[in-house]
Amino acid sequence: MNIPRTSFPRVVIIGGGFAGVALAKKLSKQEVQVVLLDKNNYHTFQPLLYQVSTGGLEPDSIAYPIRKILKDFPNFHFRLANVEEINTVENKVLTDIGELKFDYLVVASGAETNYFGNSEVEKNSMAMKTIPESLNLRSLILENFEEALLTSDLHERNALMNFVIVGGGPTGVELAGALAEIKKGILPKDYPDLDTRLAQIHIIQSSDCILKGMSAKASEKAEDFLEKLGVNVWKNVRVTNYDGKIVTTNTDLTFETATLVWAAGVKGATIKGLNAGDFIYRGDRLLVNEFNQVKGFKNIYAIGDIACMVTEEFPNGLPMMAQPAIQQGKQLGENMVRLIENKPLKPFEYHDKGAMATIGRNKAVVDLPKFKFQGVFAWYVWMFVHLFFLIGFRNRMVVFINWVYNYIRFDREARLIIRPFKKKLKS
Amino acid sequence: MNIPRTSFPRVVIIGGGFAGVALAKKLSKQEVQVVLLDKNNYHTFQPLLYQVSTGGLEPDSIAYPIRKILKDFPNFHFRLANVEEINTVENKVLTDIGELKFDYLVVASGAETNYFGNSEVEKNSMAMKTIPESLNLRSLILENFEEALLTSDLHERNALMNFVIVGGGPTGVELAGALAEIKKGILPKDYPDLDTRLAQIHIIQSSDCILKGMSAKASEKAEDFLEKLGVNVWKNVRVTNYDGKIVTTNTDLTFETATLVWAAGVKGATIKGLNAGDFIYRGDRLLVNEFNQVKGFKNIYAIGDIACMVTEEFPNGLPMMAQPAIQQGKQLGENMVRLIENKPLKPFEYHDKGAMATIGRNKAVVDLPKFKFQGVFAWYVWMFVHLFFLIGFRNRMVVFINWVYNYIRFDREARLIIRPFKKKLKS
Repeated sequence: MNIPRTSFPRVVIIGGGFAGVALAKKLSKQEVQVVLLDKNNYHTFQPLLYQVSTGGLEPDSIAYPIRKILKDFPNFHFRLANVEEINTVENKVLTDIGELKFDYLVVASGAETNYFGNSEVEKNSMAMKTIPESLNLRSLILENFEEALLTSDLHERNALMNFVIVGGGPTGVELAGALAEIKKGILPKDYPDLDTRLAQIHIIQSSDCILKGMSAKASEKAEDFLEKLGVNVWKNVRVTNYDGKIVTTNTDLTFETATLVWAAGVKGATIKGLNAGDFIYRGDRLLVNEFNQVKGFKNIYAIGDIACMVTEEFPNGLPMMAQPAIQQGKQLGENMVRLIENKPLKPFEYHDKGAMATIGRNKAVVDLPKFKFQGVFAWYVWMFVHLFFLIGFRNRMVVFINWVYNYIRFDREARLIIRPFKKKLKS
Repeated sequence: MNIPRTSFPRVVIIGGGFAGVALAKKLSKQEVQVVLLDKNNYHTFQPLLYQVSTGGLEPDSIAYPIRKILKDFPNFHFRLANVEEINTVENKVLTDIGELKFDYLVVASGAETNYFGNSEVEKNSMAMKTIPESLNLRSLILENFEEALLTSDLHERNALMNFVIVGGGPTGVELAGALAEIKKGILPKDYPDLDTRLAQIHIIQSSDCILKGMSAKASEKAEDFLEKLGVNVWKNVRVTNYDGKIVTTNTDLTFETATLVWAAGVKGATIKGLNAGDFIYRGDRLLVNEFNQVKGFKNIYAIGDIACMVTEEFPNGLPMMAQPAIQQGKQLGENMVRLIENKPLKPFEYHDKGAMATIGRNKAVVDLPKFKFQGVFAWYVWMFVHLFFLIGFRNRMVVFINWVYNYIRFDREARLIIRPFKKKLKS
């Protein structure tokens, strides 16, 4: 990779998610050379992916070109690259567009879907961690209804109109709520030939409550909201397999469905060369100290979902969410400046700003450190916070208009069947 | 296809473009059963595809779910289907989801890119007739710059930064103008490591003027606008081949480029069973009479780009544009009602509402039947007309906001590299 060396130390950041972008922003005006590598040319606002899957938002309005976030900084370089290996001995990364030496490496590669080793589930289910995956899910949902129209086999039709979501975390809950609203508001108008009342939405959670990381009140209320929307909530049920037709569980329950969405777990997106050793901790994450240094390395750091920082309050590591990622990115940026100026580093302190999830129109649950509330006001807070954290004025405007329109019209218009993939069409 | 017969005659429409949708709307409240078939579940507003290719608009904002256009009409049925053959003897269409009998058939399958038999150009060039094609072009343009950063081979870098557009019609002219604005407004900020002044935009026209269908003044002014934007306009040059690297022409001129956009011609998108006979006329179109009846058939009609209606003023058939398509769709709808009521049909009369093209900010040319004007006012008229003809309030709002934002900020933010394809990922 032909990036000329300058007199500044070179910081290579792998990943342009919340953590990587927060760090790059902090470093952009400092006396370091920053090289950010990502396999996409855009930053994805993951908390709103479920709205892309359900036609509420266009993909472009929750993504942002990484180059644009950091334009105007001469010491910042972006390269569209897939990092294939990290060489911790020679301090370089190997990518599909060549090698790159680093002085400091920051792994911010995020998380990927965890199928817990079940390859059949992996092959047959849909995930929702990226924009292409969300568009594929959107297309599949729409295609299922088109196909349901064509078949006279009742079993097949029901399977096409059944949606099974595995995992009662925010992703699963928000997707289930959105599907329920589509069922109510859009399907009867779009498919008058079809008895769309037969469409079923199931959410399956292995433990005894949904939204496990939130308060008991939030969990109960969310379940209540889901049930009011007609979603079937199955607790204490663990999915054991899915062959593309039948979902089997550890109980007698089975589900016939053409669509299984797997939102049951994530794990660190490790990279070869840094994927085995005593620094690998819970959920394939990289164990870091309070300065986000990966255990056993002096110049290799990890931030965000890939990092596992153990604290007294969080013995299994900080939660894999946007807030710790953003906070770690900022803090590491400040620490790197201290490092270069030979000042002592400051340890990271996580400021828990709370958690929230939306279930449907006027229905959300919010846990702030001091207040917990649910319902209409929570729903407004949820929208305000998400608009605030979106990158870019245009994105905020477009998302806002879509939300207002969808609210007034009970509608979701981004309903094109279009399937993206990332390979080049031309050789 | 399990669509139950009613006592009403069945009209099958192939294609949900301007013509097909205009017809279906007219028929939706009448005593006919309407079945609309399209290979996409959305209607595409083709005149703005070039803005998707150049990052100015999201694909979702220029497309609209066909089901939504015609919801609430019990006699309307949509099916997502690829029509593979028309059986004119047994009055049925054969599709990938089964057969369908018709009483009346309306072919509104539109136009496709015409490579004039040059398979090498077809293989190596990019087209811009559909949303997936436009997204592929957008991705290729962005990838080219990412690749240009990586190479130290000057020839290769220049080829990656050269854009050759073949065809000086509205599509070619509007794309060339948009690329020129990207070169000026976005590339220097996004790619500070690259000398983006070296990026070249060429537009090649085989005849002696661009925008051939418009007035001489419009053509001259458009050329003037393009040249002011730094676009190289080559007239009286015909492209003979493109091997993926070098464009050869009928002159000494050659161009080294990684991106050839073929906007040099269209032809009717004919369908097997109705693709050979004396009804095939100029540009693979179906010759129709003044009632849009295909020559030699009583119950088969053609409207829009696929129809070739010869008039005194247009001996080669009406222009292949949105206006004749919309007008024919409406008129045929009215005629079908007359047909059912045993009233005499009214012949189609084309009302030429003029033509327009935009070249860049504050730069457009407009030919109305009575006035011809160019520049800032023309640009406002162009925007107003396009917003007006877009389907859907939400689409209009989102497009309007994007345009205001792009205008104020000299920006285009829909710059994700994402490549769509239409096959299902799951088997």
